[in-house]
Amino acid sequence: MSRVYVAGVGATRIDEHWDKSLRDLMVEASLKAINDAGLSRRDIEAIFVGNMSSGYLQGQEHLGSLLATWLGIPGVAASKVEAACASGGAAVHNAFLAVKSGVYDCVLVVGVEKLTDAVTSDATSALIMAEDQEYIAFTGFSFVALNALVYKAYMKKYRARQEEIASFAVHDHKYAVNNPLAQYPRLISLEEVMRSPVVADPVRLLESAPLGDGSAALVLCSENKLKELRDRDVLVELAGSSISTEIFSVHDRTDLTTIGASVKASRKAYAMAGVEPKDVDVVEVHDAFTVLGVIHLEDLGFAEKGAGWRLLSEGQLEKDGDVPTNTMGGLKAQGHPVGATGVYQIYDVVAQLRGEAGKNQVDGAEVGLAQNVGGVGGTVTVHILRRVR
Amino acid sequence: MSRVYVAGVGATRIDEHWDKSLRDLMVEASLKAINDAGLSRRDIEAIFVGNMSSGYLQGQEHLGSLLATWLGIPGVAASKVEAACASGGAAVHNAFLAVKSGVYDCVLVVGVEKLTDAVTSDATSALIMAEDQEYIAFTGFSFVALNALVYKAYMKKYRARQEEIASFAVHDHKYAVNNPLAQYPRLISLEEVMRSPVVADPVRLLESAPLGDGSAALVLCSENKLKELRDRDVLVELAGSSISTEIFSVHDRTDLTTIGASVKASRKAYAMAGVEPKDVDVVEVHDAFTVLGVIHLEDLGFAEKGAGWRLLSEGQLEKDGDVPTNTMGGLKAQGHPVGATGVYQIYDVVAQLRGEAGKNQVDGAEVGLAQNVGGVGGTVTVHILRRVR
Repeated sequence: MSRVYVAGVGATRIDEHWDKSLRDLMVEASLKAINDAGLSRRDIEAIFVGNMSSGYLQGQEHLGSLLATWLGIPGVAASKVEAACASGGAAVHNAFLAVKSGVYDCVLVVGVEKLTDAVTSDATSALIMAEDQEYIAFTGFSFVALNALVYKAYMKKYRARQEEIASFAVHDHKYAVNNPLAQYPRLISLEEVMRSPVVADPVRLLESAPLGDGSAALVLCSENKLKELRDRDVLVELAGSSISTEIFSVHDRTDLTTIGASVKASRKAYAMAGVEPKDVDVVEVHDAFTVLGVIHLEDLGFAEKGAGWRLLSEGQLEKDGDVPTNTMGGLKAQGHPVGATGVYQIYDVVAQLRGEAGKNQVDGAEVGLAQNVGGVGGTVTVHILRRVR
Repeated sequence: MSRVYVAGVGATRIDEHWDKSLRDLMVEASLKAINDAGLSRRDIEAIFVGNMSSGYLQGQEHLGSLLATWLGIPGVAASKVEAACASGGAAVHNAFLAVKSGVYDCVLVVGVEKLTDAVTSDATSALIMAEDQEYIAFTGFSFVALNALVYKAYMKKYRARQEEIASFAVHDHKYAVNNPLAQYPRLISLEEVMRSPVVADPVRLLESAPLGDGSAALVLCSENKLKELRDRDVLVELAGSSISTEIFSVHDRTDLTTIGASVKASRKAYAMAGVEPKDVDVVEVHDAFTVLGVIHLEDLGFAEKGAGWRLLSEGQLEKDGDVPTNTMGGLKAQGHPVGATGVYQIYDVVAQLRGEAGKNQVDGAEVGLAQNVGGVGGTVTVHILRRVR
């Protein structure tokens, strides 16, 4: 089995892109990634598009063929991959398998989502499709309401104060300031977070990832293809890739404060990459809501259960801490264009491993991890990247 | 690279399943396939769901995790794969890559679609999402209208009479009679077809695949896993698997009477399997409309361009002809539950290769081909199966 390398990355800014369509965003990110790899479009053999809701929101399915055509390379292999908010990570996993299989040497993964100016503008209806329509959505429960249950359960079980958890948002915004792709590159204070409106008790507005539009792309290639690429000072390997599921609905789980799919997916990815949590220099977690960031850090092995929030107050998540986390702004401040998020996270990790993270640079980062979550943990993908030179 | 085998197959009848939900159908087909393989659910390591429109029609995304949970195996890998009407074939291709990669030894592919009793019952709106929303759908062009253009172009270019092409529907129904899974297991005459209402000139109602609900599933496994399976008299290898795209929209193509993606995908699959068209004993083509069946047979190499319709009148598509085609009823009469169709086709080919096709059995069938098409050929998948003992 060939090793898999990230030959190029590209992304649009995350924003309310009123002047760009879904295809504009996909094409822009794709061309940037292909260019970054020093390749031509003709080198691409297969495309995997990560997207959740283009059918419902834009009235557009069949994004693989659409993108191939608008990139000017009809004829290539292409399909869309969906796993709710983990669609981006799932597309990367399928692309990883494609290169690993030996059938393709050079593939493009593109995450894309457009939540603002949609044919059907009801993003809330789109997002609850990540959960069970027949047993949950019909009751009127929204996606944020489910996460509010998790938040309450966590605070109760581990006697954590909301302020300790909510400071995750403050952390994210501090790093977004230096990220040109970020949707909200500005500082916020804990007081502002705690004074912001309650969306679903206890989740505050400023603890919630925003709605936005964006696309991020990666070019993955095999060892064979690598020989054709121009020499880079830095080369990044996609050393571990995994996807796991968990009991689909929150109400069927015995413990709301842990996500089994995170535990399983990370253990698989660690084993595949031959690393342990202590070897990881930079982490991206799927903090769609502040409490999730905390829970994820625990499930991924960076803290004991119930102690994840302490990493924040101890400064461990800072770029010079023990577990530099969401150092480009995370979902809260870089943004969360649902099906694209998992690809943005890998983009961010690659920036760190290449030493291209500017003021947010983690010194000497060699191993990075990105965790992408679908639904309330119904699916989790974990990717581990390693600088190999 | 490991060879890939079809260890088990399962399917529901295609029907208006008013009493079964999307998940019921998926679970039923999956359990049948796992049982047919002589495996237990715990053997499944990854799930690939082929589906086009569950978000729009059922308000349900995240089918991979949903199915894993309802199969009682949360924890496995899972994602949904979409490529419009070729979603089923695309899911099989991604599953093929997964086994080929060596990362998974035993995977489940499930195609599913429910078009009748949907939250949003507008199947026409759902299907046109296979084409370009911004440049086609907004004009009011329906999916069948696009295929009507293809039909007219074909008749004009090759001076074929509609009756010669429309008899494809008669052919399909003749074979559906003996297929317990078929949605319309009854005979129709050419006169009935030609007297049926025009849906979009010249396409007649009885030349058009029906709307229906259904799910089909396959268990694919590696050579490693094969050793754990009970001995079968017959073993079927998935010897070739490919997916190609074509210029997305019909109005951008120079020739409507050929689908480039069919040509490319079939050439790749033939090369991978080491066979030629003359070696193929049984064929499933994606005849969503009669004229497509004819065009596909040409593009796949079974007839010269413009001569595909002659195979019908010459009797070559019969079970004892040179190119036994759609011998279980095809899309027209077995049915066309969009994202499931590509999996049903492989189910049908496997039935023939195992000698389990009953009255429709093609004597001594050893090599079969299934072609699944997304949109008006924007994506085509080709799978070649071979009986290896």
